[in-house]
Amino acid sequence: MKLKLENHFFVFNPKSYLFGDKLIEYAKVADQMAKKYPHIQVFVTAPYADLYRLNLETENIIVTAQHFDGIEPGRGMGAVLPDSLANVGVKATFLNHAEHPLSLADLSAAIKRAKELGIITIVCADSVEEAKAIATLDVDILLCEPTELIGTGKTSDRSYIEKTNHAIKTINSEVLIMQAAGVSTAEDVYQIIAQGADGTGCTSGIVKASDPKQMIIDMIEAVNKGIGG
Amino acid sequence: MKLKLENHFFVFNPKSYLFGDKLIEYAKVADQMAKKYPHIQVFVTAPYADLYRLNLETENIIVTAQHFDGIEPGRGMGAVLPDSLANVGVKATFLNHAEHPLSLADLSAAIKRAKELGIITIVCADSVEEAKAIATLDVDILLCEPTELIGTGKTSDRSYIEKTNHAIKTINSEVLIMQAAGVSTAEDVYQIIAQGADGTGCTSGIVKASDPKQMIIDMIEAVNKGIGG
Amino acid sequence: MKLKLENHFFVFNPKSYLFGDKLIEYAKVADQMAKKYPHIQVFVTAPYADLYRLNLETENIIVTAQHFDGIEPGRGMGAVLPDSLANVGVKATFLNHAEHPLSLADLSAAIKRAKELGIITIVCADSVEEAKAIATLDVDILLCEPTELIGTGKTSDRSYIEKTNHAIKTINSEVLIMQAAGVSTAEDVYQIIAQGADGTGCTSGIVKASDPKQMIIDMIEAVNKGIGG
Amino acid sequence: MKLKLENHFFVFNPKSYLFGDKLIEYAKVADQMAKKYPHIQVFVTAPYADLYRLNLETENIIVTAQHFDGIEPGRGMGAVLPDSLANVGVKATFLNHAEHPLSLADLSAAIKRAKELGIITIVCADSVEEAKAIATLDVDILLCEPTELIGTGKTSDRSYIEKTNHAIKTINSEVLIMQAAGVSTAEDVYQIIAQGADGTGCTSGIVKASDPKQMIIDMIEAVNKGIGG
Repeated sequence: MKLKLENHFFVFNPKSYLFGDKLIEYAKVADQMAKKYPHIQVFVTAPYADLYRLNLETENIIVTAQHFDGIEPGRGMGAVLPDSLANVGVKATFLNHAEHPLSLADLSAAIKRAKELGIITIVCADSVEEAKAIATLDVDILLCEPTELIGTGKTSDRSYIEKTNHAIKTINSEVLIMQAAGVSTAEDVYQIIAQGADGTGCTSGIVKASDPKQMIIDMIEAVNKGIGG
Repeated sequence: MKLKLENHFFVFNPKSYLFGDKLIEYAKVADQMAKKYPHIQVFVTAPYADLYRLNLETENIIVTAQHFDGIEPGRGMGAVLPDSLANVGVKATFLNHAEHPLSLADLSAAIKRAKELGIITIVCADSVEEAKAIATLDVDILLCEPTELIGTGKTSDRSYIEKTNHAIKTINSEVLIMQAAGVSTAEDVYQIIAQGADGTGCTSGIVKASDPKQMIIDMIEAVNKGIGG
Repeated sequence: MKLKLENHFFVFNPKSYLFGDKLIEYAKVADQMAKKYPHIQVFVTAPYADLYRLNLETENIIVTAQHFDGIEPGRGMGAVLPDSLANVGVKATFLNHAEHPLSLADLSAAIKRAKELGIITIVCADSVEEAKAIATLDVDILLCEPTELIGTGKTSDRSYIEKTNHAIKTINSEVLIMQAAGVSTAEDVYQIIAQGADGTGCTSGIVKASDPKQMIIDMIEAVNKGIGG
Repeated sequence: MKLKLENHFFVFNPKSYLFGDKLIEYAKVADQMAKKYPHIQVFVTAPYADLYRLNLETENIIVTAQHFDGIEPGRGMGAVLPDSLANVGVKATFLNHAEHPLSLADLSAAIKRAKELGIITIVCADSVEEAKAIATLDVDILLCEPTELIGTGKTSDRSYIEKTNHAIKTINSEVLIMQAAGVSTAEDVYQIIAQGADGTGCTSGIVKASDPKQMIIDMIEAVNKGIGG
């Protein structure tokens, strides 16, 4: 499974806010939206122990892990084994999130294992400089969040998005670029996609919304609108 | 669920060697042995993504995680959320394994979350000194492996076991003590239990055995024999 | 060099706020106070690269590292080698500070190396539970800061200090107890010592004071007053 | 201070094997060789606490740290403060050594601080893939060691060196390339330089030699011979 450049995507990333029944309930909403808009790839993350069930109870989303370790089956007590995730239907994984930073050697090993298992990698960078370094590796999606915007509720503007896109695609023209800093409303989603990001996503804007399921619907509708759908 | 001191236990800990169907197949053998010997507690670990299914397909074992992080639901991208494990039926967890060492603050937080969720803690120590420090915390089982024996195929002898038991139970008389260094045969299991350990366990002695399922049977029979069963 | 229980102490811990000439200038003030009050032990920390000069230019303080790694001479590229510190005159070290947490195995190894080299250990704990665990190890001073007070400018009160002292000294009667949460004025220092702490210390209350050198003088005078001097 | 591409270099990196008088004694030999061959840059590393004295007692070498953290003066208890190193005469630092791996964010921060302080960066990579990623950052020297050669006593051959040089210099033509895998004799040094590496270096081949000072002399002579001197 290789993402195509023409595709746009949305990531519902509830981190460790959700698990169990509520996670599945929300994921099913995302699943319906993925069915409605087959030209939009919808990724949904879950805690490791929920991935098996997430895969069983959805059909159209891309089941996504929050992280995995670049190990082969063997020792690795307490590590997150990529093969065990692939085996329960995981098709993508985040790597190097600011809340789970990796050494370059570990990141490189994890990307290698993802390639072997056909798992899409969504790799996080704190700055354009780091994003360029990561773009030399064989990653699928780069999430590039300017540290100064995190938690401000302020999204990246057109100039930042264009600058990032240009810097990264000069190094690796095939990588997709996710912009998600400060996204908390459907309008933010629309603006970011309309300004040229390949994809976006959201955590607290959804899980802390007064109606999280409606927010998932609104945000994926906004992606569709942003790409002129 | 509180382990009682009169109970003996065996841990089948396949680490990251097994996942998916083969893991479930072996776990079912352990499950049958747990049914046969209700006075022996049988713990089985699995990669995080396999825990949901491990719980569904067994009845008598204690479903055990290899690790979890001492966090509450919330951010924690990539962390192992205790609530998500408890929700899929996890009843015990290893902590501070030599392959996943924790700072004292993180270990303390994880033990606290385990208590809140009713999850049994199996905490690892590299030396008797560390075991004594950990025994002051509210842990259920202490796994005490003398570093000099790891990977030697040589098990702890009676004097080591007695010395460890005494040192630890002076500090915390309720903690159970697991001795597993060098255990690779059913005879090793018998000797360790006969010499006074509360429990033991095995990884490579089982997964690398010519007949792993028979080895699980033999080892749990050996626990029973060791306690005079 | 073994601290005696009858001694009280003060730690001037400028962390990474100071280095070079300014650090030496301030340390010399602490050195004069240590000379004036020989019954008060005065510890001064410095960045690793400043320890050589700190030792050369002072006579009465205890030259203290902010951390070291529990390694023997050998590989350890980038690690902080205990022997190299001892060789330049370091007589004490902090370990397991909240800004540099250690696994229990690494903490245990570092304490062991400190004993071999005759270096005093000041080990940090985030809670009374952790302090009790650390007290089972052969440490000299326990710094016990209730997490809920850090950065509040509110110091531990008499009941907290008495509770901590009792809990820790029940486990290890020889360990000295440092209380430093929220200490920002000489009055705070006086109160903490008068309420029964063996020692205290300060970082930002000194380095951010309008007259840091006078604050060092005032705080050490306050220790003396606190012990009825 | 900016390394010029025409310069070749040699790194005497005793890691944590040496400290104090013996380190200074050996460093003085390297210093004499650096004086003899001004067209060869000679880097000498030392434990942090020895850097002050290393700078005082040498004139011609580049005083080099084994690591530093990308922090500003401030908190950072236990961290290695770049400003404190620059202040005692440190002119270069290793970063991301396999024995002290950094997250990409931390590596990026450390490189940034090095630029601000005019400190040369020698950044380690485990593979050509990682070396290419690091080459996008503003580093001065890349140490590229094929993991499969470490500890084998077998050096990189001409084809590996040419391949690495090409891959890295395509991305960043100004970065110097250090090849040091398996270097244990003066002949190894000669071969690596003759085959096109910008520089090389050695740890155990020197500190474990029967005559370490003579080995330093022989290896730096070999660099000179390798560049046709």
